[in-house]
Amino acid sequence: MRRAITGFSNPLIKQVRALREKKFRKREGRFLAEGLRIMAEAREAGHIPELLFLAVGQEPHPLTTALEQDVIKSDGEVIETSSEILAKLSGKSNPQTLVGVYSDISLGLESLKRDAAPIWLVAQAMRDPGNLGTMLRTGDAVGAGGLILVDDSTDPFSVEAVRASMGAVFTQSIVQCRWEEFSAWLRSGEGQLVGTSLQTETDYQAAAYHAPCFILTGNEAQGLPESYESECDLLVKMPMYGKADSLNAAIATAVMAYEVRNQMRRG
Amino acid sequence: MRRAITGFSNPLIKQVRALREKKFRKREGRFLAEGLRIMAEAREAGHIPELLFLAVGQEPHPLTTALEQDVIKSDGEVIETSSEILAKLSGKSNPQTLVGVYSDISLGLESLKRDAAPIWLVAQAMRDPGNLGTMLRTGDAVGAGGLILVDDSTDPFSVEAVRASMGAVFTQSIVQCRWEEFSAWLRSGEGQLVGTSLQTETDYQAAAYHAPCFILTGNEAQGLPESYESECDLLVKMPMYGKADSLNAAIATAVMAYEVRNQMRRG
Repeated sequence: MRRAITGFSNPLIKQVRALREKKFRKREGRFLAEGLRIMAEAREAGHIPELLFLAVGQEPHPLTTALEQDVIKSDGEVIETSSEILAKLSGKSNPQTLVGVYSDISLGLESLKRDAAPIWLVAQAMRDPGNLGTMLRTGDAVGAGGLILVDDSTDPFSVEAVRASMGAVFTQSIVQCRWEEFSAWLRSGEGQLVGTSLQTETDYQAAAYHAPCFILTGNEAQGLPESYESECDLLVKMPMYGKADSLNAAIATAVMAYEVRNQMRRG
Repeated sequence: MRRAITGFSNPLIKQVRALREKKFRKREGRFLAEGLRIMAEAREAGHIPELLFLAVGQEPHPLTTALEQDVIKSDGEVIETSSEILAKLSGKSNPQTLVGVYSDISLGLESLKRDAAPIWLVAQAMRDPGNLGTMLRTGDAVGAGGLILVDDSTDPFSVEAVRASMGAVFTQSIVQCRWEEFSAWLRSGEGQLVGTSLQTETDYQAAAYHAPCFILTGNEAQGLPESYESECDLLVKMPMYGKADSLNAAIATAVMAYEVRNQMRRG
Protein backbone atom coordinates (compact mmCIF):
# COMPACT_ATOMS: atom_id res chain seq x y z
CA MET A 1 0.00 0.00 0.00
CA ARG A 2 1.10 3.54 -0.65
CA ARG A 3 -0.16 6.66 1.04
CA ALA A 4 0.81 10.12 2.21
CA ILE A 5 0.90 11.44 5.75
CA THR A 6 1.21 15.16 6.29
CA GLY A 7 -0.01 15.65 9.85
CA PHE A 8 2.29 15.60 12.87
CA SER A 9 -0.48 14.25 15.06
CA ASN A 10 -1.08 11.18 12.93
CA PRO A 11 -1.08 8.24 15.35
CA LEU A 12 1.24 6.18 13.12
CA ILE A 13 3.89 8.90 13.31
CA LYS A 14 3.69 8.85 17.10
CA GLN A 15 3.86 5.08 17.16
CA VAL A 16 6.91 4.96 14.91
CA ARG A 17 8.64 7.72 16.77
CA ALA A 18 8.14 5.76 19.99
CA LEU A 19 10.35 3.02 18.53
CA ARG A 20 13.30 5.24 19.46
CA GLU A 21 12.69 3.98 23.01
CA LYS A 22 13.64 0.49 24.07
CA LYS A 23 10.41 -0.33 25.88
CA PHE A 24 8.36 0.36 22.77
CA ARG A 25 10.73 -1.67 20.60
CA LYS A 26 10.33 -4.59 23.01
CA ARG A 27 6.56 -4.23 23.12
CA GLU A 28 6.17 -3.95 19.35
CA GLY A 29 8.96 -6.29 18.30
CA ARG A 30 10.04 -3.72 15.75
CA PHE A 31 12.90 -1.27 15.29
CA LEU A 32 14.03 1.63 13.10
CA ALA A 33 16.74 1.97 10.49
CA GLU A 34 17.55 5.18 8.67
CA GLY A 35 19.19 6.14 5.42
CA LEU A 36 19.64 4.54 2.04
CA ARG A 37 23.06 3.03 2.70
CA ILE A 38 21.93 0.99 5.70
CA MET A 39 18.57 0.09 4.18
CA ALA A 40 20.26 -1.10 1.00
CA GLU A 41 22.45 -3.43 3.10
CA ALA A 42 19.29 -4.67 4.79
CA ARG A 43 17.62 -5.32 1.46
CA GLU A 44 20.62 -7.22 0.15
CA ALA A 45 20.51 -9.38 3.27
CA GLY A 46 16.81 -10.06 2.58
CA HIS A 47 15.29 -7.71 5.15
CA ILE A 48 12.45 -5.58 3.83
CA PRO A 49 10.85 -2.96 6.09
CA GLU A 50 7.20 -3.27 7.05
CA LEU A 51 6.89 0.49 6.76
CA LEU A 52 8.96 2.72 4.55
CA PHE A 53 8.85 6.47 5.09
CA LEU A 54 10.25 8.72 2.42
CA ALA A 55 10.39 12.44 1.79
CA VAL A 56 8.07 13.75 -0.91
CA GLY A 57 9.55 15.62 -3.81
CA GLN A 58 12.91 13.85 -3.72
CA GLU A 59 14.59 12.75 -6.93
CA PRO A 60 14.16 8.99 -6.43
CA HIS A 61 17.40 6.99 -6.21
CA PRO A 62 17.11 3.71 -8.20
CA LEU A 63 17.70 1.74 -4.99
CA THR A 64 14.87 3.60 -3.30
CA THR A 65 12.55 2.69 -6.14
CA ALA A 66 13.56 -0.96 -5.88
CA LEU A 67 13.02 -0.86 -2.15
CA GLU A 68 9.56 0.67 -2.58
CA GLN A 69 8.61 -2.14 -4.93
CA ASP A 70 9.82 -4.76 -2.45
CA VAL A 71 7.81 -3.19 0.35
CA ILE A 72 4.62 -3.14 -1.72
CA LYS A 73 5.24 -6.71 -2.89
CA SER A 74 5.60 -7.96 0.69
CA ASP A 75 2.38 -6.20 1.77
CA GLY A 76 4.16 -3.42 3.59
CA GLU A 77 3.35 0.27 3.39
CA VAL A 78 5.19 3.06 1.61
CA ILE A 79 4.46 6.38 3.25
CA GLU A 80 5.32 9.68 1.66
CA THR A 81 5.77 12.44 4.13
CA SER A 82 7.44 15.78 4.76
CA SER A 83 11.03 16.27 5.78
CA GLU A 84 9.68 17.87 8.98
CA ILE A 85 7.98 14.62 9.90
CA LEU A 86 11.07 12.63 8.96
CA ALA A 87 13.03 14.94 11.25
CA LYS A 88 10.55 14.11 13.99
CA LEU A 89 10.90 10.38 13.36
CA SER A 90 14.67 10.48 13.33
CA GLY A 91 15.13 13.05 16.08
CA LYS A 92 17.56 14.98 13.90
CA SER A 93 17.18 18.43 12.40
CA ASN A 94 18.86 17.23 9.22
CA PRO A 95 17.19 13.83 8.77
CA GLN A 96 17.85 11.01 6.39
CA THR A 97 15.27 10.96 3.59
CA LEU A 98 14.41 7.32 4.28
CA VAL A 99 13.24 5.68 7.48
CA GLY A 100 12.24 2.04 7.71
CA VAL A 101 10.43 0.04 10.36
CA TYR A 102 11.70 -3.54 10.57
CA SER A 103 10.50 -6.47 12.58
CA ASP A 104 12.82 -7.80 15.29
CA ILE A 105 15.55 -10.05 13.91
CA SER A 106 17.26 -11.29 17.05
CA LEU A 107 17.79 -15.02 17.26
CA GLY A 108 18.01 -17.71 19.89
CA LEU A 109 21.30 -19.51 20.57
CA GLU A 110 19.80 -22.76 19.27
CA SER A 111 19.45 -21.32 15.79
CA LEU A 112 23.15 -20.38 15.47
CA LYS A 113 25.14 -22.60 13.14
CA ARG A 114 28.57 -22.35 14.71
CA ASP A 115 30.30 -24.01 11.77
CA ALA A 116 28.95 -21.45 9.34
CA ALA A 117 31.69 -18.98 10.28
CA PRO A 118 35.26 -19.23 11.61
CA ILE A 119 34.81 -16.36 14.07
CA TRP A 120 32.05 -15.30 16.43
CA LEU A 121 32.09 -12.22 18.61
CA VAL A 122 30.82 -12.38 22.17
CA ALA A 123 30.35 -9.20 24.20
CA GLN A 124 29.54 -9.15 27.87
CA ALA A 125 27.42 -6.36 29.37
CA MET A 126 28.14 -3.86 26.59
CA ARG A 127 26.99 -0.40 27.62
CA ASP A 128 27.67 1.84 24.66
CA PRO A 129 25.46 1.55 21.55
CA GLY A 130 28.24 3.00 19.39
CA ASN A 131 30.64 0.30 20.56
CA LEU A 132 28.02 -2.38 19.97
CA GLY A 133 27.20 -1.17 16.47
CA THR A 134 30.89 -0.86 15.65
CA MET A 135 31.44 -4.46 16.77
CA LEU A 136 28.72 -5.61 14.39
CA ARG A 137 30.36 -3.65 11.56
CA THR A 138 33.77 -5.15 12.40
CA GLY A 139 32.23 -8.62 12.64
CA ASP A 140 30.86 -8.26 9.14
CA ALA A 141 34.29 -7.14 7.89
CA VAL A 142 36.21 -10.09 9.35
CA GLY A 143 33.59 -12.58 8.25
CA ALA A 144 32.23 -13.35 11.70
CA GLY A 145 28.94 -15.19 11.95
CA GLY A 146 27.40 -12.90 14.48
CA LEU A 147 27.48 -11.19 17.84
CA ILE A 148 26.37 -12.92 21.02
CA LEU A 149 25.41 -10.41 23.70
CA VAL A 150 25.83 -11.86 27.15
CA ASP A 151 24.19 -10.44 30.28
CA ASP A 152 22.54 -7.02 30.35
CA SER A 153 23.51 -5.26 27.18
CA THR A 154 22.61 -2.02 25.50
CA ASP A 155 19.96 -2.72 22.85
CA PRO A 156 21.49 -3.76 19.49
CA PHE A 157 18.37 -2.41 17.78
CA SER A 158 18.59 1.12 19.12
CA VAL A 159 18.87 3.83 16.50
CA GLU A 160 22.46 4.57 17.59
CA ALA A 161 23.60 0.94 17.40
CA VAL A 162 21.92 0.39 14.04
CA ARG A 163 23.59 3.53 12.69
CA ALA A 164 27.06 2.59 14.00
CA SER A 165 26.65 -0.90 12.52
CA MET A 166 26.32 0.65 9.05
CA GLY A 167 23.86 -2.11 8.20
CA ALA A 168 25.74 -5.02 9.78
CA VAL A 169 22.85 -5.36 12.22
CA PHE A 170 21.13 -7.04 9.25
CA THR A 171 24.01 -9.26 8.12
CA GLN A 172 25.29 -10.52 11.47
CA SER A 173 23.29 -12.96 13.58
CA ILE A 174 22.44 -11.35 16.91
CA VAL A 175 21.70 -13.32 20.06
CA GLN A 176 21.00 -12.04 23.56
CA CYS A 177 21.35 -14.45 26.49
CA ARG A 178 22.69 -15.04 30.00
CA TRP A 179 26.25 -16.24 30.53
CA GLU A 180 25.07 -19.64 31.79
CA GLU A 181 23.03 -20.19 28.64
CA PHE A 182 25.91 -19.17 26.41
CA SER A 183 28.38 -21.32 28.31
CA ALA A 184 26.15 -24.41 28.15
CA TRP A 185 25.48 -23.92 24.44
CA LEU A 186 29.18 -23.33 23.68
CA ARG A 187 30.26 -26.53 25.45
CA SER A 188 27.63 -28.58 23.67
CA GLY A 189 29.82 -28.49 20.56
CA GLU A 190 33.13 -27.37 19.09
CA GLY A 191 34.47 -23.94 19.84
CA GLN A 192 37.47 -22.12 21.29
CA LEU A 193 36.63 -19.37 23.78
CA VAL A 194 39.26 -16.62 23.78
CA GLY A 195 39.20 -13.73 26.22
CA THR A 196 41.37 -10.64 26.34
CA SER A 197 42.68 -10.06 29.82
CA LEU A 198 45.18 -8.11 31.87
CA GLN A 199 45.68 -11.24 34.02
CA THR A 200 47.76 -13.14 31.50
CA GLU A 201 51.23 -12.99 30.01
CA THR A 202 50.21 -14.69 26.76
CA ASP A 203 50.75 -12.36 23.84
CA TYR A 204 47.79 -12.38 21.45
CA GLN A 205 50.15 -13.07 18.55
CA ALA A 206 51.81 -16.02 20.28
CA ALA A 207 48.57 -17.95 20.75
CA ALA A 208 47.04 -20.39 18.26
CA TYR A 209 43.43 -19.92 17.29
CA HIS A 210 41.11 -22.37 15.66
CA ALA A 211 37.65 -22.19 14.17
CA PRO A 212 35.03 -21.69 15.37
CA CYS A 213 36.78 -19.12 17.53
CA PHE A 214 34.62 -17.17 20.00
CA ILE A 215 36.24 -13.84 20.86
CA LEU A 216 34.99 -12.62 24.22
CA THR A 217 35.10 -8.94 25.17
CA GLY A 218 34.12 -7.63 28.60
CA ASN A 219 32.20 -4.58 29.74
CA GLU A 220 33.77 -1.22 28.87
CA ALA A 221 34.45 -0.19 32.47
CA GLN A 222 34.90 -3.45 34.36
CA GLY A 223 36.27 -5.87 31.79
CA LEU A 224 35.39 -9.55 32.13
CA PRO A 225 34.33 -11.03 35.47
CA GLU A 226 37.02 -13.38 36.79
CA SER A 227 34.70 -16.37 36.75
CA TYR A 228 34.10 -15.80 33.02
CA GLU A 229 37.82 -15.51 32.38
CA SER A 230 38.36 -18.83 34.11
CA GLU A 231 35.99 -20.49 31.66
CA CYS A 232 38.02 -19.32 28.66
CA ASP A 233 40.13 -21.82 26.74
CA LEU A 234 42.69 -19.11 26.22
CA LEU A 235 43.40 -15.72 27.74
CA VAL A 236 45.56 -13.37 25.74
CA LYS A 237 46.68 -9.78 25.92
CA MET A 238 47.67 -7.19 23.42
CA PRO A 239 50.96 -5.40 24.05
CA MET A 240 50.44 -1.92 25.46
CA TYR A 241 53.21 0.62 24.99
CA GLY A 242 51.70 3.68 26.63
CA LYS A 243 50.36 4.88 29.94
CA ALA A 244 46.96 3.26 29.71
CA ASP A 245 46.30 -0.39 30.45
CA SER A 246 43.31 -0.96 28.21
CA LEU A 247 41.83 -0.33 24.78
CA ASN A 248 38.31 0.71 23.89
CA ALA A 249 36.18 -2.47 23.86
CA ALA A 250 35.30 -2.28 20.16
CA ILE A 251 38.95 -1.57 19.30
CA ALA A 252 40.23 -4.53 21.34
CA THR A 253 37.67 -6.78 19.66
CA ALA A 254 38.73 -5.64 16.20
CA VAL A 255 42.47 -6.02 16.82
CA MET A 256 41.83 -9.54 18.18
CA ALA A 257 39.45 -10.49 15.38
CA TYR A 258 41.90 -9.42 12.66
CA GLU A 259 44.70 -11.37 14.36
CA VAL A 260 42.54 -14.51 14.47
CA ARG A 261 41.48 -14.01 10.87
CA ASN A 262 45.06 -13.33 9.75
CA GLN A 263 46.26 -16.54 11.38
CA MET A 264 43.48 -18.48 9.69
CA ARG A 265 44.23 -17.09 6.25
CA ARG A 266 47.90 -18.01 6.65
CA GLY A 267 46.48 -21.51 6.99
CA MET B 1 43.75 28.99 46.71
CA ARG B 2 40.85 27.05 48.09
CA ARG B 3 37.26 28.19 48.28
CA ALA B 4 33.67 27.04 48.16
CA ILE B 5 31.02 27.95 45.61
CA THR B 6 27.44 27.15 46.36
CA GLY B 7 25.48 29.43 44.05
CA PHE B 8 24.39 28.43 40.57
CA SER B 9 24.62 32.01 39.37
CA ASN B 10 28.28 32.39 40.30
CA PRO B 11 29.96 33.84 37.21
CA LEU B 12 32.84 31.35 37.37
CA ILE B 13 30.38 28.45 37.13
CA LYS B 14 28.85 30.00 34.01
CA GLN B 15 32.28 30.62 32.52
CA VAL B 16 33.42 27.05 33.11
CA ARG B 17 30.19 25.58 31.86
CA ALA B 18 30.66 27.58 28.65
CA LEU B 19 33.84 25.56 27.99
CA ARG B 20 31.56 22.77 26.81
CA GLU B 21 31.23 24.86 23.62
CA LYS B 22 34.01 25.06 21.09
CA LYS B 23 33.88 28.82 20.59
CA PHE B 24 34.44 29.44 24.29
CA ARG B 25 37.28 26.90 24.42
CA LYS B 26 38.96 28.72 21.53
CA ARG B 27 38.42 32.10 23.07
CA GLU B 28 39.69 31.08 26.51
CA GLY B 29 42.36 28.62 25.42
CA ARG B 30 41.12 26.21 28.05
CA PHE B 31 39.19 22.96 28.15
CA LEU B 32 37.48 20.56 30.56
CA ALA B 33 38.33 17.09 31.76
CA GLU B 34 36.19 15.07 34.12
CA GLY B 35 36.71 12.22 36.50
CA LEU B 36 39.57 10.91 38.61
CA ARG B 37 40.81 8.34 36.11
CA ILE B 38 41.39 10.85 33.32
CA MET B 39 42.70 13.54 35.63
CA ALA B 40 45.15 11.10 37.19
CA GLU B 41 46.50 10.34 33.68
CA ALA B 42 46.82 14.07 33.11
CA ARG B 43 48.71 14.53 36.38
CA GLU B 44 51.10 11.70 35.57
CA ALA B 45 51.78 13.36 32.22
CA GLY B 46 52.55 16.61 34.04
CA HIS B 47 49.29 18.45 33.35
CA ILE B 48 47.76 20.12 36.41
CA PRO B 49 44.39 21.88 36.09
CA GLU B 50 44.15 25.61 36.66
CA LEU B 51 40.83 25.04 38.38
CA LEU B 52 39.79 21.91 40.20
CA PHE B 53 36.13 21.46 41.14
CA LEU B 54 35.22 18.78 43.62
CA ALA B 55 32.11 17.69 45.42
CA VAL B 56 31.91 18.59 49.11
CA GLY B 57 31.48 15.81 51.61
CA GLN B 58 33.18 13.13 49.55
CA GLU B 59 35.58 10.69 51.17
CA PRO B 60 38.78 11.99 49.54
CA HIS B 61 40.65 9.54 47.33
CA PRO B 62 44.44 9.74 47.95
CA LEU B 63 44.93 10.74 44.31
CA THR B 64 42.41 13.56 44.69
CA THR B 65 44.33 14.83 47.70
CA ALA B 66 47.60 14.72 45.74
CA LEU B 67 45.93 16.53 42.86
CA GLU B 68 44.59 19.23 45.20
CA GLN B 69 48.08 19.82 46.55
CA ASP B 70 49.49 20.11 43.02
CA VAL B 71 46.84 22.65 42.07
CA ILE B 72 47.51 24.80 45.13
CA LYS B 73 51.27 24.54 44.56
CA SER B 74 50.94 25.74 40.96
CA ASP B 75 48.79 28.71 41.99
CA GLY B 76 45.56 27.18 40.75
CA GLU B 77 42.26 27.10 42.58
CA VAL B 78 40.52 24.23 44.31
CA ILE B 79 36.80 24.83 44.43
CA GLU B 80 34.48 22.81 46.61
CA THR B 81 30.97 22.74 45.33
CA SER B 82 27.74 20.77 45.33
CA SER B 83 27.00 17.76 43.17
CA GLU B 84 24.18 19.84 41.63
CA ILE B 85 26.69 22.36 40.37
CA LEU B 86 29.02 19.59 39.19
CA ALA B 87 26.05 18.18 37.30
CA LYS B 88 25.59 21.58 35.70
CA LEU B 89 29.27 21.76 34.74
CA SER B 90 29.33 18.28 33.28
CA GLY B 91 25.88 18.34 31.69
CA LYS B 92 25.12 14.96 33.27
CA SER B 93 22.57 14.10 35.92
CA ASN B 94 25.04 11.67 37.49
CA PRO B 95 28.24 13.71 37.29
CA GLN B 96 31.81 12.81 38.02
CA THR B 97 32.89 14.16 41.40
CA LEU B 98 35.91 15.92 39.86
CA VAL B 99 36.04 18.45 37.05
CA GLY B 100 39.23 20.18 35.95
CA VAL B 101 39.89 23.18 33.75
CA TYR B 102 43.13 22.80 31.77
CA SER B 103 44.94 25.22 29.52
CA ASP B 104 45.12 24.34 25.84
CA ILE B 105 47.84 21.79 25.07
CA SER B 106 47.76 21.60 21.29
CA LEU B 107 51.10 21.94 19.56
CA GLY B 108 52.48 23.22 16.30
CA LEU B 109 53.99 20.82 13.75
CA GLU B 110 57.40 22.38 14.27
CA SER B 111 57.49 21.17 17.85
CA LEU B 112 56.91 17.49 16.97
CA LYS B 113 59.98 15.28 17.33
CA ARG B 114 59.26 12.68 14.70
CA ASP B 115 62.04 10.38 15.85
CA ALA B 116 60.65 10.24 19.35
CA ALA B 117 58.13 7.57 18.34
CA PRO B 118 57.95 4.83 15.68
CA ILE B 119 54.30 5.55 14.83
CA TRP B 120 52.28 8.70 14.36
CA LEU B 121 48.56 8.83 13.62
CA VAL B 122 47.21 11.30 11.08
CA ALA B 123 43.46 11.82 10.70
CA GLN B 124 41.87 13.85 7.96
CA ALA B 125 38.63 15.76 8.56
CA MET B 126 37.53 13.61 11.51
CA ARG B 127 33.89 14.31 12.36
CA ASP B 128 33.10 12.20 15.35
CA PRO B 129 34.54 13.16 18.76
CA GLY B 130 34.22 9.57 19.97
CA ASN B 131 36.32 8.34 17.04
CA LEU B 132 38.89 11.04 17.64
CA GLY B 133 39.18 10.31 21.35
CA THR B 134 39.38 6.58 20.66
CA MET B 135 42.22 7.20 18.19
CA LEU B 136 44.13 9.06 20.90
CA ARG B 137 43.57 6.16 23.29
CA THR B 138 44.73 3.66 20.67
CA GLY B 139 47.73 5.85 19.85
CA ASP B 140 48.78 5.77 23.48
CA ALA B 141 48.40 1.97 23.53
CA VAL B 142 50.58 1.32 20.46
CA GLY B 143 53.20 3.83 21.56
CA ALA B 144 52.43 6.45 18.94
CA GLY B 145 53.88 9.91 19.43
CA GLY B 146 50.70 11.77 18.73
CA LEU B 147 47.77 12.55 16.51
CA ILE B 148 48.00 15.05 13.66
CA LEU B 149 44.56 16.38 12.70
CA VAL B 150 44.50 17.52 9.12
CA ASP B 151 41.86 19.85 7.66
CA ASP B 152 38.64 20.70 9.51
CA SER B 153 38.37 18.32 12.40
CA THR B 154 36.08 17.89 15.33
CA ASP B 155 37.70 19.49 18.38
CA PRO B 156 40.08 17.11 20.21
CA PHE B 157 39.42 19.07 23.40
CA SER B 158 35.66 18.65 23.44
CA VAL B 159 34.28 16.91 26.51
CA GLU B 160 33.30 13.89 24.39
CA ALA B 161 36.73 13.50 22.79
CA VAL B 162 38.54 13.94 26.10
CA ARG B 163 36.28 11.31 27.67
CA ALA B 164 36.75 8.81 24.83
CA SER B 165 40.53 9.35 25.00
CA MET B 166 40.53 8.10 28.60
CA GLY B 167 43.28 10.59 29.31
CA ALA B 168 45.37 10.01 26.19
CA VAL B 169 44.56 13.60 25.20
CA PHE B 170 47.24 14.45 27.78
CA THR B 171 49.84 11.85 26.77
CA GLN B 172 49.67 12.12 22.97
CA SER B 173 50.97 15.21 21.14
CA ILE B 174 48.09 16.84 19.27
CA VAL B 175 48.58 19.05 16.22
CA GLN B 176 45.92 20.68 14.03
CA CYS B 177 46.94 21.89 10.58
CA ARG B 178 46.10 22.06 6.88
CA TRP B 179 47.12 19.23 4.54
CA GLU B 180 49.65 21.43 2.75
CA GLU B 181 51.37 22.27 6.02
CA PHE B 182 51.47 18.64 7.08
CA SER B 183 52.75 17.50 3.72
CA ALA B 184 55.53 20.09 3.65
CA TRP B 185 56.58 19.27 7.21
CA LEU B 186 56.50 15.51 6.56
CA ARG B 187 58.73 15.79 3.50
CA SER B 188 61.22 17.98 5.30
CA GLY B 189 62.50 14.86 7.07
CA GLU B 190 62.23 11.09 7.36
CA GLY B 191 58.84 9.45 7.41
CA GLN B 192 56.71 6.86 5.62
CA LEU B 193 53.15 7.98 4.87
CA VAL B 194 50.75 5.02 4.77
CA GLY B 195 47.10 5.37 3.79
CA THR B 196 44.33 2.81 3.89
CA SER B 197 42.42 2.75 0.64
CA LEU B 198 39.90 0.81 -1.43
CA GLN B 199 41.90 1.76 -4.54
CA THR B 200 44.74 -0.68 -3.94
CA GLU B 201 45.35 -4.41 -4.02
CA THR B 202 48.20 -4.28 -1.50
CA ASP B 203 47.31 -6.29 1.56
CA TYR B 204 48.19 -4.46 4.77
CA GLN B 205 50.09 -7.50 5.99
CA ALA B 206 52.15 -7.80 2.80
CA ALA B 207 53.58 -4.28 3.05
CA ALA B 208 56.76 -3.29 4.88
CA TYR B 209 56.57 -0.44 7.33
CA HIS B 210 59.40 1.58 8.76
CA ALA B 211 59.72 4.17 11.48
CA PRO B 212 58.66 6.89 11.73
CA CYS B 213 55.49 5.54 10.12
CA PHE B 214 52.61 8.01 9.65
CA ILE B 215 49.28 6.16 9.45
CA LEU B 216 46.75 8.27 7.58
CA THR B 217 43.00 7.78 8.05
CA GLY B 218 40.37 9.63 6.04
CA ASN B 219 37.05 11.19 6.95
CA GLU B 220 34.40 8.76 8.24
CA ALA B 221 32.02 9.22 5.32
CA GLN B 222 34.25 10.15 2.36
CA GLY B 223 37.55 8.46 3.10
CA LEU B 224 40.73 10.12 1.86
CA PRO B 225 40.68 12.59 -1.04
CA GLU B 226 42.38 11.07 -4.08
CA SER B 227 45.03 13.77 -4.17
CA TYR B 228 46.01 12.88 -0.60
CA GLU B 229 46.16 9.18 -1.48
CA SER B 230 48.50 9.97 -4.33
CA GLU B 231 50.93 11.60 -1.90
CA CYS B 232 51.16 8.44 0.21
CA ASP B 233 54.31 6.33 0.07
CA LEU B 234 52.16 3.26 0.43
CA LEU B 235 48.47 2.48 0.09
CA VAL B 236 47.22 -0.68 1.72
CA LYS B 237 43.93 -2.35 2.40
CA MET B 238 42.63 -4.67 5.02
CA PRO B 239 40.88 -7.81 3.78
CA MET B 240 37.11 -7.52 4.05
CA TYR B 241 35.10 -10.74 4.21
CA GLY B 242 31.59 -9.37 4.56
CA LYS B 243 29.08 -7.20 2.75
CA ALA B 244 30.55 -3.86 3.76
CA ASP B 245 33.55 -2.26 2.11
CA SER B 246 34.83 -0.22 5.01
CA LEU B 247 35.60 -0.25 8.69
CA ASN B 248 34.88 2.44 11.24
CA ALA B 249 37.70 5.02 11.01
CA ALA B 250 38.99 4.45 14.55
CA ILE B 251 38.86 0.67 14.03
CA ALA B 252 40.77 0.84 10.75
CA THR B 253 43.41 3.02 12.40
CA ALA B 254 43.81 0.58 15.29
CA VAL B 255 44.07 -2.53 13.09
CA MET B 256 46.69 -0.77 10.96
CA ALA B 257 48.60 0.60 13.95
CA TYR B 258 48.84 -2.82 15.59
CA GLU B 259 50.04 -4.37 12.34
CA VAL B 260 52.76 -1.74 12.01
CA ARG B 261 53.74 -2.15 15.64
CA ASN B 262 53.73 -5.96 15.35
CA GLN B 263 56.04 -5.83 12.34
CA MET B 264 58.37 -3.51 14.22
CA ARG B 265 58.55 -5.70 17.28
CA ARG B 266 59.38 -8.72 15.12
CA GLY B 267 62.40 -6.59 14.17
